[in-house]
Amino acid sequence: MKLSDLGEDALVARWTRGLPRNATLLVGPGDDCAVVGRRSDAVWTLLKTDCVIEGVHFAGETDFARVGWKALARNVSDIVAMGGEPEHALVTVAFPPGLDVAKADALYKGLRRCARKFGVSIAGGETARSPGPVFVSVALTGRVERGRCVLRSGGKPGDVLFVTGRLGGSLAGKHLDFLPRLREARWLTEHFRLHAMMDLSDGLGADLPRLAKASGCGFELGELPCSPGCSHEAALGDGEDFELLFAVSPRQAQRLEKAWPFLSLPLTRVGVLTANRTRTSAHGFDHFA
Amino acid sequence: MKLSDLGEDALVARWTRGLPRNATLLVGPGDDCAVVGRRSDAVWTLLKTDCVIEGVHFAGETDFARVGWKALARNVSDIVAMGGEPEHALVTVAFPPGLDVAKADALYKGLRRCARKFGVSIAGGETARSPGPVFVSVALTGRVERGRCVLRSGGKPGDVLFVTGRLGGSLAGKHLDFLPRLREARWLTEHFRLHAMMDLSDGLGADLPRLAKASGCGFELGELPCSPGCSHEAALGDGEDFELLFAVSPRQAQRLEKAWPFLSLPLTRVGVLTANRTRTSAHGFDHFA
Repeated sequence: MKLSDLGEDALVARWTRGLPRNATLLVGPGDDCAVVGRRSDAVWTLLKTDCVIEGVHFAGETDFARVGWKALARNVSDIVAMGGEPEHALVTVAFPPGLDVAKADALYKGLRRCARKFGVSIAGGETARSPGPVFVSVALTGRVERGRCVLRSGGKPGDVLFVTGRLGGSLAGKHLDFLPRLREARWLTEHFRLHAMMDLSDGLGADLPRLAKASGCGFELGELPCSPGCSHEAALGDGEDFELLFAVSPRQAQRLEKAWPFLSLPLTRVGVLTANRTRTSAHGFDHFA
Repeated sequence: MKLSDLGEDALVARWTRGLPRNATLLVGPGDDCAVVGRRSDAVWTLLKTDCVIEGVHFAGETDFARVGWKALARNVSDIVAMGGEPEHALVTVAFPPGLDVAKADALYKGLRRCARKFGVSIAGGETARSPGPVFVSVALTGRVERGRCVLRSGGKPGDVLFVTGRLGGSLAGKHLDFLPRLREARWLTEHFRLHAMMDLSDGLGADLPRLAKASGCGFELGELPCSPGCSHEAALGDGEDFELLFAVSPRQAQRLEKAWPFLSLPLTRVGVLTANRTRTSAHGFDHFA
């Protein structure tokens, strides 16, 4: 049997079963980040890793400064989606020995630029030779106050679902230059009680079912904030939007829509969580399909 | 200009210059791990990342359980070489979609086995599609008491250099099954004042010059504890020994040789650090050469 016969979610479930854990692992695999600490600590540590691969997440002709930005920004987006702030990054890169030094330099330039923008320290890394494509894997630590940590699993039936920004069409450029919603998520967790949150990396169609399932809910979807020129299908399925998806009570939702202070970034009600779990699929990106 | 024209150490120096850092980054790139915390903290956090790649660090026909072990054990070895204990791992894997599920399962089996052996929790990870070789990147956190943290840079002229175990011939199997020297390093930092320590990943010939340079010293080498059937050259240059190299004062060295309690693991004086920095090269593995 091949990996492509099973699909990503089934494989991840298979590989994360029975993993060794210890007492300081509060939240393990399955959320945007792992959460580490003791229950009583005022501040918890967040841990996240992600990767970008030539030929999968970017083309070889892409400006490598944008690739470096993307490699770190993907992780920042996950720390943000837990309500936290990023702290220290570790960067592993595998380059073919024949690669132009200028391209590798550009990759690190993009990493540094993203790190400065979001207050990340680059604490270390590893470089290796690749016999194939360029691989960039970034691990990132973060911090979050206990009362501001938001998981995927806290959604309740009746909760209103919001997304920031516009969805779809990311491949036209945004997937390389997106801005993780650090400021917005920190404002949200300061002023509102979010029940559940995640960032949209595989598209709303793949990611919303994950949030709903983690929360033990179903969902209903309404109108989506589509990017210019994008269909509803594209907004669901293109992926790499790196916007926030979150659930709040209907009461908080009303207050939030009045208070939202980020005028250049739309905030849209896209649906509700339901008690009925029959509707739990929509189309998004599957890494092994 | 290509990466292979410059060589690994020059490239790493180029890419780690001017990296963004923040106040809690006590030790950045250049040691076995990064050290994070405040100077006054009783316990510091260690951060490390490393990777193994099909066709570079292992052959495609290798038992993938051994590959999984190796991918985590390399990082454990680095945490150990700072005097610390490993805590939480993040595992990023890129697999070709056509890979046999049994091979991927075996890789995770090896990871879990290594994690259990060394008390590591597997906190999260990422799986992606690879258009080429299998790529496994592991990031690992650890903890070390402030007084037991050992850098590469504290060596002094006259210090005695020790290595644990035997060197060379790792490719015959040890490079996949090695045991990070957790127990031994914890015993060393409990009972002795180590001036400098690192683990031997690229071979003594490449790694000792790094320790000496970080300490502002030169070095002299004597007899090496060669693995059975290995030459002095192989002991210097084969690499992937994952033994400890450390420097202590001559006085501590005498006491240590009498006290060493690990009867099945040799401890060998291999040389001294010197004030004369003219002798600073020997042969080891260069990833881009």
